[in-house]
Amino acid sequence: MNEFAHPVGKVDETIKIVKSLRHRHVRHAKNCFWLEGVRNFIQACDAGYDFETIVISPVLLRSRLAEMLARKLRAKGIAQVRVLPEAFRSISTTDRASGIGAITKQRWLPLKHANPNNGICWLVIEQIRSPGNLGTILRTAEACGVGGVMFIGPESDPFDPTVLRGSMGGVFHVPLVRTTYASFFAWAQRHDVQLVGLAPEAKRLWTKLPASHNIALVLGEERGGLSPPLRAACQTMVCLPMTGRADSLNVSVATGIVLYELVRRQTSLVMDSQFS
Amino acid sequence: MNEFAHPVGKVDETIKIVKSLRHRHVRHAKNCFWLEGVRNFIQACDAGYDFETIVISPVLLRSRLAEMLARKLRAKGIAQVRVLPEAFRSISTTDRASGIGAITKQRWLPLKHANPNNGICWLVIEQIRSPGNLGTILRTAEACGVGGVMFIGPESDPFDPTVLRGSMGGVFHVPLVRTTYASFFAWAQRHDVQLVGLAPEAKRLWTKLPASHNIALVLGEERGGLSPPLRAACQTMVCLPMTGRADSLNVSVATGIVLYELVRRQTSLVMDSQFS
Repeated sequence: MNEFAHPVGKVDETIKIVKSLRHRHVRHAKNCFWLEGVRNFIQACDAGYDFETIVISPVLLRSRLAEMLARKLRAKGIAQVRVLPEAFRSISTTDRASGIGAITKQRWLPLKHANPNNGICWLVIEQIRSPGNLGTILRTAEACGVGGVMFIGPESDPFDPTVLRGSMGGVFHVPLVRTTYASFFAWAQRHDVQLVGLAPEAKRLWTKLPASHNIALVLGEERGGLSPPLRAACQTMVCLPMTGRADSLNVSVATGIVLYELVRRQTSLVMDSQFS
Repeated sequence: MNEFAHPVGKVDETIKIVKSLRHRHVRHAKNCFWLEGVRNFIQACDAGYDFETIVISPVLLRSRLAEMLARKLRAKGIAQVRVLPEAFRSISTTDRASGIGAITKQRWLPLKHANPNNGICWLVIEQIRSPGNLGTILRTAEACGVGGVMFIGPESDPFDPTVLRGSMGGVFHVPLVRTTYASFFAWAQRHDVQLVGLAPEAKRLWTKLPASHNIALVLGEERGGLSPPLRAACQTMVCLPMTGRADSLNVSVATGIVLYELVRRQTSLVMDSQFS
């Protein structure tokens, strides 16, 4: 294990790129992101993400599986840079530097391939301000089997480091679509997708979701909620009743509750069919 | 508005105390905590919390209601210290210093006054490591009307600054109990409370919660789950099914889903009775 297999220039260049990927506009321009940590690396390999450069600090790395995967990828011709622990820590965005990371290509599904029949529903995100909330939402969405997650407009970025951390690798296994308002509305109309929004002031309970229909659950910004055009497009608005003093729930909690209402339905269908 | 109404010694002493309250053991020893921000201050006033010293920075404070409440409390003899913005920022634990805070007495309900019939259920917390998660859990618990939140052992602190921030003031409106394993088990047995735990490997779905019974939902640590004694004491373990690659949900999301399963029942009881 030669720590110095690369000329210093190559290491420095890589570190510079990784640091630049902290900025949203750079991630967007390069269509790449910095992925880090054993769990994320393994999940991204498993999901078939394309790595541009793998960065390893052998002294720090404590996962045989990650080492093996990195070796295999190297054999396939994926660039690899070995760095000392100090260098790895300087680019790490986590508390404990794992010793493995990768400059990775973003993967977006074209809207025309977004199948509204897949999964329990689609999740449509207009804007979630807190990357922690967005990460948790993606984690739940993957766990409960949404068809995919659609981002309208450029506001929210699933490849932000904090989002990735919160999603616990879930982001790699969910089809992601980036689209515009116009294209999204056209897609929903073409496929007869029922748009469901969440609002504390809605009259309809979350347990009264439209039945037997392709559903897209639409999420707006934490405080302001959905923008007027999206709200106007929702055929159904539902609320989660609150008996306390709170005026709202955390958006990732509220999303989880509504998604599991859809899981409940599917589960009871399965259970009913076992008795028929 | 005289910024210098107090001798410098009094201001310095107060700032020192506020800073010391960042430490858990000091909060515990003094039975106090540092509360900060307009929303928290108003909510704590509303809930009748006892303030020891109110700290105001008039230049920063932008809430008439908070100013008025502070004046009323001063008239009632509650100590007040006015500080310059720099001093307030030096003790603030939030991004934007609001100009109002208070050294506040912790409020704990004695276990013997914990009524298991109150609310949709009781929430019992053994340990939640992330203060952000704990805050979100308390926010949801207050919103959906739990009877109270019980902390077993000394691990988790609802008066931690990050917990307070996440709870959005919810913590002030929920009865809080601190107890031991032995006392908790005795309480549950005496009142015939059904203990429900959450575990990904449980066979029973979250929709099959025990009916017509006082329930306490018991939460363990994010990764390890419930400790063996608590797990053994649970009459029911339920799971949230996951169809994706995830091995778990975020604990605050999972808690929200189960709590709203209890809300659903109560809501459907109300709705059923409207038709009978």
